[in-house]
Amino acid sequence: MKVSIIGTTGYGGAELIRILHSHPSFTIKSVHTTRDEVPVWNEYPHLFNIMENKLEPINPEKIAKECDIVFFATPTGVSGKLVQEFADKEIQMVDLSGDLRLRNTDDYQKWYKKEPVSTDLINSFVYGLSEWNKENIASSTRISNPGCYPTATLLGLAPLVKENMILPNSIIVDAKSGISGAGRSPSRANMYAEMSENLKIYKVNEHQHIPEIEQQLADWNSESKAITFSTHLLPASRGIMATIYATLSKSVTNEQIHGLYTEIYTNSPFVRVRPLHTYPSIKEVTGSNFCDIGINVDERTGRITIVSVIDNLMKGAAGQAVQNANIMNGYEETAGLQFLPLYP
Amino acid sequence: MKVSIIGTTGYGGAELIRILHSHPSFTIKSVHTTRDEVPVWNEYPHLFNIMENKLEPINPEKIAKECDIVFFATPTGVSGKLVQEFADKEIQMVDLSGDLRLRNTDDYQKWYKKEPVSTDLINSFVYGLSEWNKENIASSTRISNPGCYPTATLLGLAPLVKENMILPNSIIVDAKSGISGAGRSPSRANMYAEMSENLKIYKVNEHQHIPEIEQQLADWNSESKAITFSTHLLPASRGIMATIYATLSKSVTNEQIHGLYTEIYTNSPFVRVRPLHTYPSIKEVTGSNFCDIGINVDERTGRITIVSVIDNLMKGAAGQAVQNANIMNGYEETAGLQFLPLYP
Amino acid sequence: MKVSIIGTTGYGGAELIRILHSHPSFTIKSVHTTRDEVPVWNEYPHLFNIMENKLEPINPEKIAKECDIVFFATPTGVSGKLVQEFADKEIQMVDLSGDLRLRNTDDYQKWYKKEPVSTDLINSFVYGLSEWNKENIASSTRISNPGCYPTATLLGLAPLVKENMILPNSIIVDAKSGISGAGRSPSRANMYAEMSENLKIYKVNEHQHIPEIEQQLADWNSESKAITFSTHLLPASRGIMATIYATLSKSVTNEQIHGLYTEIYTNSPFVRVRPLHTYPSIKEVTGSNFCDIGINVDERTGRITIVSVIDNLMKGAAGQAVQNANIMNGYEETAGLQFLPLYP
Amino acid sequence: MKVSIIGTTGYGGAELIRILHSHPSFTIKSVHTTRDEVPVWNEYPHLFNIMENKLEPINPEKIAKECDIVFFATPTGVSGKLVQEFADKEIQMVDLSGDLRLRNTDDYQKWYKKEPVSTDLINSFVYGLSEWNKENIASSTRISNPGCYPTATLLGLAPLVKENMILPNSIIVDAKSGISGAGRSPSRANMYAEMSENLKIYKVNEHQHIPEIEQQLADWNSESKAITFSTHLLPASRGIMATIYATLSKSVTNEQIHGLYTEIYTNSPFVRVRPLHTYPSIKEVTGSNFCDIGINVDERTGRITIVSVIDNLMKGAAGQAVQNANIMNGYEETAGLQFLPLYP
Repeated sequence: MKVSIIGTTGYGGAELIRILHSHPSFTIKSVHTTRDEVPVWNEYPHLFNIMENKLEPINPEKIAKECDIVFFATPTGVSGKLVQEFADKEIQMVDLSGDLRLRNTDDYQKWYKKEPVSTDLINSFVYGLSEWNKENIASSTRISNPGCYPTATLLGLAPLVKENMILPNSIIVDAKSGISGAGRSPSRANMYAEMSENLKIYKVNEHQHIPEIEQQLADWNSESKAITFSTHLLPASRGIMATIYATLSKSVTNEQIHGLYTEIYTNSPFVRVRPLHTYPSIKEVTGSNFCDIGINVDERTGRITIVSVIDNLMKGAAGQAVQNANIMNGYEETAGLQFLPLYP
Repeated sequence: MKVSIIGTTGYGGAELIRILHSHPSFTIKSVHTTRDEVPVWNEYPHLFNIMENKLEPINPEKIAKECDIVFFATPTGVSGKLVQEFADKEIQMVDLSGDLRLRNTDDYQKWYKKEPVSTDLINSFVYGLSEWNKENIASSTRISNPGCYPTATLLGLAPLVKENMILPNSIIVDAKSGISGAGRSPSRANMYAEMSENLKIYKVNEHQHIPEIEQQLADWNSESKAITFSTHLLPASRGIMATIYATLSKSVTNEQIHGLYTEIYTNSPFVRVRPLHTYPSIKEVTGSNFCDIGINVDERTGRITIVSVIDNLMKGAAGQAVQNANIMNGYEETAGLQFLPLYP
Repeated sequence: MKVSIIGTTGYGGAELIRILHSHPSFTIKSVHTTRDEVPVWNEYPHLFNIMENKLEPINPEKIAKECDIVFFATPTGVSGKLVQEFADKEIQMVDLSGDLRLRNTDDYQKWYKKEPVSTDLINSFVYGLSEWNKENIASSTRISNPGCYPTATLLGLAPLVKENMILPNSIIVDAKSGISGAGRSPSRANMYAEMSENLKIYKVNEHQHIPEIEQQLADWNSESKAITFSTHLLPASRGIMATIYATLSKSVTNEQIHGLYTEIYTNSPFVRVRPLHTYPSIKEVTGSNFCDIGINVDERTGRITIVSVIDNLMKGAAGQAVQNANIMNGYEETAGLQFLPLYP
Repeated sequence: MKVSIIGTTGYGGAELIRILHSHPSFTIKSVHTTRDEVPVWNEYPHLFNIMENKLEPINPEKIAKECDIVFFATPTGVSGKLVQEFADKEIQMVDLSGDLRLRNTDDYQKWYKKEPVSTDLINSFVYGLSEWNKENIASSTRISNPGCYPTATLLGLAPLVKENMILPNSIIVDAKSGISGAGRSPSRANMYAEMSENLKIYKVNEHQHIPEIEQQLADWNSESKAITFSTHLLPASRGIMATIYATLSKSVTNEQIHGLYTEIYTNSPFVRVRPLHTYPSIKEVTGSNFCDIGINVDERTGRITIVSVIDNLMKGAAGQAVQNANIMNGYEETAGLQFLPLYP
């Protein structure tokens, strides 16, 4: 299948190139940006001699004619408009932005502070949390790829929420992200000298991923309530850790919860439930599509702590996007995604 | 006053040297270790030409005779034994380890997994949380200096707990520390290649600082309950951030809580309550004795988020130790501690 | 072909696993260490669920019987002894250590300060600088894999030295390496808090890779002289940059030198000569087997500056080892090695 | 004395505040920028509660009336114009930019690619390499503060060049700098995700500090020739290491060279010549005004390697600026500059 990538100069776009370059079924046909028509390695010198494509302007007509699937790795607000331009074309779409995730357009306006696209368009897209929405993805041609924080958080919370193991109003998520999550546009917040040896909390209870998480939790469990959600910027390029806290609704042991998670994720090749008393660190998934999960039940407090880690550019963006494209097209879920973590 | 530092080769000892070298009232008389009798700059080349002292063996008799105050920057278990050897001497003591912090020796055995020192000895020491125990410190000659995590956590929680603003059983602390907190003994866990671009959670609900925090909370408020407490290792040399979550016991606004904190800490020169809607980052206190606090009341969930940051080697160890020595001897609390943060 | 890896717990061994796990022609049969017989993911949690092999003790008889090729990723001194034990067995060998690189055993004793293995054994191994020794490698069954610094330095210098473009006694190499080059044994030198935000020069003119470089230069050009060689430890996990300086023996232009390099490396898929006036950075090859080269002729001084970068664990160790195993067995040179750099 | 700082929002300006805030003889009267009139802690939150000054517009009349000395921490091109506006006022000036360093205005145009200020104005300023120009500084009221690379390079080279120990045309400087040297304006080159785990070479033989170094070398020794000079960006916030190579003009020992350096710098409190066979690392001077030097004579090649490290914001900028202001005003050279390095 022929692939087009729009928004190639951001980190998500570059990661799509890394994956698709050696994918058995997808071939990159064209890469696009609103910027200069230069070889892609002008923007990303690590692609010198690997990828000779020039960045091209975005021509929906041409793209839809030449390609079978288009990935949008464009910023919030931009993505929605582009998707609209492709909506009447015969081409599969995977959108990595937040523009098509929230079914409630008021939520979009409130949290993103931008104009939403039409509900019809939104509803034509399937939410691509691969492990939990596989059937819908398989029968769709349009995917709205989950956010990085929601992916880590939802994969960590799913068994507890679906099985009614925790009090609905007790969920607190303390999330930490590498700086690539803030994009490739230079700003004071993502400068080396400002972030090295630093840790910054930001958007406390105001992050636009909150309604996305709450929407999915409510789909899983109608008792769901608002969550407390903090995000921190780490001195690391990649990686997300969501440390999740909740009050257990009944007395259970570490072993029971571990058994539950292991069973639920037994057919999910990218979710690794770690042995009891061990916890994943973010570097242990770097460059891979894994979501690793650790569990701790605390008898002293009756609370559970779940640790969920991903590479924000892989399972949190480009990796899950390709996983969804695989599922959508009947390929092996893991095709082109069998990168081992790069360690150290 | 003449000062002796025992345990000079760890990071806490080195930080005591950095502070005391230019302190107006204390002079370093001798530095001690159980290791070789080499110049201190053999261990710390950054002290070349600054400090010609040789490391000396630990001779309590001689130290007590020659010095007015001794700082113990020795590991858990070692410290307690050393303090015992000095207990019948005429010398002030400040212990930076955890050996004299827990009044309940069963707790010490349970969480530290070592033999406790005698209750009598423990009770002869005053807990040196400077901002909250000033009078006892002023009238004492022996200080048990708080742990790094408890300092950040307790300064962040104090106003809420003392004023009964939160539900006692709702406290969750998600703490993150720079790697110097793990000491200067090389191990796989503190290797560069293992920790760079990484974030590791460890000792989930098992950290030995938990009973220290709970002891102080109970002293402040008899309703206090067990807390949930996670610790993470950050890719940074210095710094601690405690992100603290709790359920408010009544409806209050951001402004009210901010007013409360500002008032309570108005005479605490090292606590900086940040303006509403801004939050401190760890690099903004590096090298200084500040504890910076940010506040967020979330109306959606009825919970409060408190962010408290310190430099773990300063306010979390050597800085607070000198602050306590200042108070104990009637000097200005800030004497020798007016370092501005090193930024960037 | 069935592969055995000896010395699996170091970073070189882990990188061999990363490569060979998805290699089209090699399959990992067994992994060995002198340490505990635990699953390999006990040592490397990032391999959890990926590699179920237990670490096994080193039994040459058994290994030679079960496998077709063995990689030694063991420390200097250890490797030589192991190779000896396999010398009379029917099995291909690739040694990643320095034990079999120096034909002059006096040099080995002088620079490595250890007992050399026998000259006969050394001479049965071919020096595996893939780009420059391809024919010998192809007809051999035993490879001595080059050191990380020599690989970057020699690939950078080869055209100049072979073509007599520089004064023999004018070569100065200022090399910088990520910390994984110092191995996985914890020591003060490779601790996070010691190396973060740091840069350390070490073994000035005393590095054991000097005679290895000089031996190859002399093979290429009999006029070769002693080189000046400095090594620095960088705050990075991976990567080597060799900045190489030499005096030109005749007047040439940037364009001429660039043309020379481009032509010489035209059939070397892993050497990328960068466009004039651009220079590679180490992150642009991370995780890949590339050696990227930049060139600068300075008319003011008549000197040339060559910048050569590699990933020390890939082209500087495991990557080149697999490249050599490919060549030795008639596979595509690039088989299993087509990783794009992980960026950022 | 009352001080004004112009260009407060860059890292050099912030470092001036850190130093002057506790200087015994200078008091910060006003801070200026061309940007918004906000409290300085809006730009630098680490100064919250420490410095209440608002950033003010630049009014030369007012500043000269209210202050005794003005520091310019403004970018190249900006600084020269500002200095001109103050030239007819009664106020001491210390300029941290490159605008007044090159006596040959053609050189300025060639290397800086900007219009130079007048030769008269340039000549009214004294080059502030404190250790080597003390008398001129003491009798001046206008200082052109050296660049960061020149400071490290010249302090490392001075004894060799002045004593004719090396061949004039043999000097090669391989310099490495922390990223704060690139300023506080966000750009792709100084983003965290681009520089973390990276090392970049830039401006090979084209750095504007080359003519500044060569001008001083020629002042010291009329035989001086063009130098080879490379600069690299390190993944560190602060610090410069210059690794300097040259061919010895006669046979000397390590001990002789070490003796020479020790003697020459015996009265220079900020230059620390390290013991033979040890070398400084950049973290060992972080936050301090030291320049640390290590020496290696290589008998095999007849070359010498000099390692010179500084904190680029201290001895390489604000620290040396204050040192010069001290000398100019007859204060102790070390006044307000006795910061120990912050380690780790």
